Amino acid sequence: MRLMSASPAKISLTGIKPTGEPHLGNYVGAIKPALKLAEEYEAMYFIADYHALTTVRDPKLLRHYTRSVAATWIAAGLDPDQVIFYRQSDIPEIPELTWILCCMTGKGLMNRAHAYKAARDRNQEAGKADLDAGINMGLYNYPVLMAVDILIMGTDAVPVGRDQMQHVEIAADIAGSFNHVYGDSFKLKVPQAIVPEAETGHTLPGLDGRKMSKSYDNTIPLFCSESQLKKLVRRIPTDSTPVEDPKDPDSSNVFQILEQFAPPEITTDTRQRLQAGGMGWGELKNQLFDILNTQLGPLRERYDALMAPGSELDALLAAGAEKARKRAVPALDQVRRAIGIG
Amino acid sequence: MRLMSASPAKISLTGIKPTGEPHLGNYVGAIKPALKLAEEYEAMYFIADYHALTTVRDPKLLRHYTRSVAATWIAAGLDPDQVIFYRQSDIPEIPELTWILCCMTGKGLMNRAHAYKAARDRNQEAGKADLDAGINMGLYNYPVLMAVDILIMGTDAVPVGRDQMQHVEIAADIAGSFNHVYGDSFKLKVPQAIVPEAETGHTLPGLDGRKMSKSYDNTIPLFCSESQLKKLVRRIPTDSTPVEDPKDPDSSNVFQILEQFAPPEITTDTRQRLQAGGMGWGELKNQLFDILNTQLGPLRERYDALMAPGSELDALLAAGAEKARKRAVPALDQVRRAIGIG
Repeated sequence: MRLMSASPAKISLTGIKPTGEPHLGNYVGAIKPALKLAEEYEAMYFIADYHALTTVRDPKLLRHYTRSVAATWIAAGLDPDQVIFYRQSDIPEIPELTWILCCMTGKGLMNRAHAYKAARDRNQEAGKADLDAGINMGLYNYPVLMAVDILIMGTDAVPVGRDQMQHVEIAADIAGSFNHVYGDSFKLKVPQAIVPEAETGHTLPGLDGRKMSKSYDNTIPLFCSESQLKKLVRRIPTDSTPVEDPKDPDSSNVFQILEQFAPPEITTDTRQRLQAGGMGWGELKNQLFDILNTQLGPLRERYDALMAPGSELDALLAAGAEKARKRAVPALDQVRRAIGIG
Repeated sequence: MRLMSASPAKISLTGIKPTGEPHLGNYVGAIKPALKLAEEYEAMYFIADYHALTTVRDPKLLRHYTRSVAATWIAAGLDPDQVIFYRQSDIPEIPELTWILCCMTGKGLMNRAHAYKAARDRNQEAGKADLDAGINMGLYNYPVLMAVDILIMGTDAVPVGRDQMQHVEIAADIAGSFNHVYGDSFKLKVPQAIVPEAETGHTLPGLDGRKMSKSYDNTIPLFCSESQLKKLVRRIPTDSTPVEDPKDPDSSNVFQILEQFAPPEITTDTRQRLQAGGMGWGELKNQLFDILNTQLGPLRERYDALMAPGSELDALLAAGAEKARKRAVPALDQVRRAIGIG
């Protein structure tokens, strides 16, 4: 049970789009820093399956990604009893408020949204006459849906990377438009973006040395099998410095991954051994594999148990939805009354 | 109780936008022909309050218009036991399906929608640099909402005027896009537009001789008081033909209204008296007032009773919503399963 303090904790909200298998880079760069929010905030996390629908057309895949993302976050340490963890599509108040707030959102605001503009730019570069070619209304509308994700929960703080600041600005804009017209009856809380502290949110190098990312197809899946993990670690590129020569740990992809997972004393020790010479890349890779496998083994076990048919995953998500709707239902009720619908 | 036939009746759907007080022109041109649908179809009627929200910003007015429209249709003869009569905003499945179908709707389709194009044209004529100025996302998205109104109920037939044909075409397009991707699991029924027969759907002249319409501010409210009705009928323009001269009934605004309300034998008799000469405009207006007042009196009484606080209006709408959701809930469930969300 969460202890209630005299002044209620501020609410943070983290959205997770289920569009692929989680990898080590997600774990270090997104999942771990997001889970730390629960220390300071009343932390809410949701699986943005209705956002994924703008691109994922395969029902089996969407269902799998959604379950997989849920199981990943719980395996990675999200405690559904301590935080609010839910699936967006379990909250019917979200699409309803989306329609309402569409009526208060200027079309110009959507024309300036980054994702839409990028899609038009791609059409222009491809020489297409219709710059809206292939763009669906889900992609065009998604900043309103995202604003509702934030506003309906009375969110104070939205952790975002720099490239997502605009989402929170749009949410604040839309809240402002609503409050301007209906603020005498009910005010939507205007959210703020927070950029995660520097020490969290690291990026990991991938199998080709570039940032580990699904779009580069260079990832180490978080929950691959032991043998696959071993194989992938061996594929991380290294230079041809002989075993006995000193090496620069900070320019080594292998070491950069290792220092995100190893305890500090091991990191320090390994750093010194590399700098002194005598430690080869093969040995470093074996060490990295051992550390990853030891740390991720129990997580993988929990993940596999949650992904098994008939696991408690669905019940956990249902309980999370119930908690989230305790915030969403009264918020929508108040909006409906304010606009003259309820 | 409706008797079930061996093959279930086809479904018709009529949407009513609550954006003003009903007038005689609505009654003759829209309400009466729409009510006749119940003779041939399993007729559904809904108050499109979420469509009204794209323009109505005053909560009191929106609440009043919504109740007023509901009371009008029931007073005019809609039998909530025989048909399905509901308020759009009582069906949360509608906005949810709207989001889903947005993801299957090309933005180009919305760019070509008449109402949006007309709004851009007005901006262009006004010399505005941003053609999207003042256009909100409710206006831009409303063809998708309208498609969902139709598709979620499994509608066969949508009665429309020529200027609304596009709405049904867009709904059919969106259904086609959904069925193309997900049709193996679930198919949305592709609706058809029906244009009401010529004998129904008359237009009435208004107080200035032009078509009676809210936008011309020339209407006779359907449920104005007796004294106001008398005053307004007197204001209908006539020419200065002397009492004793023969008159052409078909070029008289007063007669055109009368023939929509009077029994056929009275219409025939009055036509002959006007053509013969000796019947003045004053007498014709008195006759029209008597006919209107006799016919509309009981309707006005029923309307006033329904509009009174604590009337059965809310219970009737709640019962209608329950009937409508018996169609909407399973439809949304099937769509959610098909896309991999449910």
